[in-house]
This record gives sequence, structure tokens and C-alpha cells, in this order.
Amino acid sequence: MVTAAMARTTLCVCVCLLASQVATSHVSEKMNRTIQNLLQHYIPARERFNRRPVFSRELLGTKLEAKELLLSAALQTYEELVQHMLKELPGEESVDVRADLSYILERVQHLRRFRFQEQDKLLDGLHTFRHVMVDNELIQSKALWELPWLYEEASSLANKRRQRRRRKAKWPRTFQAH
Amino acid sequence: MVTAAMARTTLCVCVCLLASQVATSHVSEKMNRTIQNLLQHYIPARERFNRRPVFSRELLGTKLEAKELLLSAALQTYEELVQHMLKELPGEESVDVRADLSYILERVQHLRRFRFQEQDKLLDGLHTFRHVMVDNELIQSKALWELPWLYEEASSLANKRRQRRRRKAKWPRTFQAH
Repeated sequence: MVTAAMARTTLCVCVCLLASQVATSHVSEKMNRTIQNLLQHYIPARERFNRRPVFSRELLGTKLEAKELLLSAALQTYEELVQHMLKELPGEESVDVRADLSYILERVQHLRRFRFQEQDKLLDGLHTFRHVMVDNELIQSKALWELPWLYEEASSLANKRRQRRRRKAKWPRTFQAH
Repeated sequence: MVTAAMARTTLCVCVCLLASQVATSHVSEKMNRTIQNLLQHYIPARERFNRRPVFSRELLGTKLEAKELLLSAALQTYEELVQHMLKELPGEESVDVRADLSYILERVQHLRRFRFQEQDKLLDGLHTFRHVMVDNELIQSKALWELPWLYEEASSLANKRRQRRRRKAKWPRTFQAH
């Protein structure tokens, strides 16, 4: 049964999606329509929406390389999330929903494969660097052995960054002086 | 009992640390000596060293921002690793080892706190973006709702990057032509 609250939510979703479609060009009409269909199927009652987003826009207000990396991480998460939703779908009654989810999954995978390969490699590297078996004795010895060059790399890179910032800060003044 | 293999390993460690100290300036003499002491305590027999490092230098052969991020991740891991080693130390017999580990931990924490705060924030953001509860229905709905703007951001950013690269590739030719 369609309640007034559900109708309002659906209308709100349509307006938002339409607005985002007008303002953008990379999210196709088909993709927008598919998300709209899925939201009608999945969306919980309006009052369950709080102001805490899954992917914070605030975090994305950073410099380009960092933003690319965050978006790449978000796309990886979307891939897992939609794959999980597909796995959890009950049988035959959800043929349309399955097709819609598969289409969204395909779009996300396409964007990742053709535009975010570099970032994905870096994320893999970060994963390797963060997930070290800290309780393994051999790893501990090896890591200690590697510490001098890594500490040196980190310190000299931080110094270079500082020098670069100082040069950047000085540049406009020099430019104005001439 | 000190075997010939152990003596060779220790000599090798000393030579390497000395060489790295000559070539660098950020790893102090005290830090080098402390690592050397710890290696004598911790290092397993030489034959257990294979050619697979814990922190790959190959991965670090990347552009500046990415390298900073990888080094920040490695320093986070070092902090955890040394904290774990301290926790695992047996009681009174290891007073020197405890002091040495504490000193190394302090050095790593100092470098992180004063030079890698930005990168640490970004790593936290990446963690938030990657560790989403993909099996939670409300999260799924919200994420679907957020997909259009995020997909748009990711697509337009990837386009900007391509345009920037094209401009960079064109620039030297234009410059030569004039």
C-alpha cells in the first residue's frame, strides 16, 4: 500500500535525481532511472534518513590526488556493496531488481577499470603496507632492518615538501616585485 | 654461543647500518646504534632472510603524493609493530631492549606527528570509505542515494586528469615551436 509518506519520498527522490541529471553529464539517463527504480525497491521510510552520509562530501574537499584516491576507494566499496546486494536478493520475484543492480555494478566496474587503475594499484600498496603481521618474529626483524632507509625516505620527503611549500609561498611576491 | 654465521650476520648488519648512516642525515647515530642493538637481540639466523622485504621499495617508486601516503602508512605500521614488540617483551631481563624499543617508538611517533598529519587524515578518510557495512540495509539505501553525485565526481575528475595530462604532453612541443 502506498502511503502519503512513501509518495512524498518517491517524489523527493525523483526531483533530486532529475536535478542531478540536469546539472551533470556523466550519469546517463538510464543510470539515473535505474537508481530511481532501485531506491523505490530499497529505500526505507523517510524518517530513517539521518544527516550522516555514507561517503562524506567534506572528506572529498581535498586536493586532487587525494580526492582521486578517496573516490577510487568509494568505487571499490560500491562494487562490493552492489555485489553483496545481488547475492542477498531473493529468487524469481526480483528479476527487474537483479537486472538493475547488475547494470549499476557494470557501470561502477567500467569506471574503475578504465579510469581508476592507477589509484587502485596505490590502494593495494597501502593495504600491503598497513596489513603487516606485527606479531610475526621474522617480520619484526625484517621491519627493524628496513627502518633506517624507510625513516630516511620519510624524513627527507617531508623536508622536500616543506621546501616546495616555502618556494610556492615566496613565488607570488617575487613575481609582483618584478 | 656465538656461531660463525651469527658473527657474519652481525658484521653485515653493522656495515649496512654504517653505510646508510654515511649516506643519510635524518637517521641519527643514536637511532642507528639502537636499531643495531635491537637487531642483535631480535634477528633470526641469516638463512631466514629471503628477498621479500616487508616494505617494498618498488611500490615507493611512484609520484610524490602517493609516496608520502605509502610512507605514512608504513610509519603507522611501525608504530603498531614496535608497540606490539614492547607488549610481548618478557619482564626484567630485557630492560635495555625495552629502552631501545621505546626510543625507536618515540622517533617514529615524532616523525608521524610533526610531518605526516595530513597523510594520516587522508588514510583515516580512506579507511572510512573502504570500511562500510555493506550488509546493512540502511547503508545500502543511503549509498544508492549518494551514487549519482559520487559517480559524477569520479567521472569528471578522471576527465580533468586526462585533459591535464594532454596539456602537459603538448606543452614542450609548443614551447619548442616558439
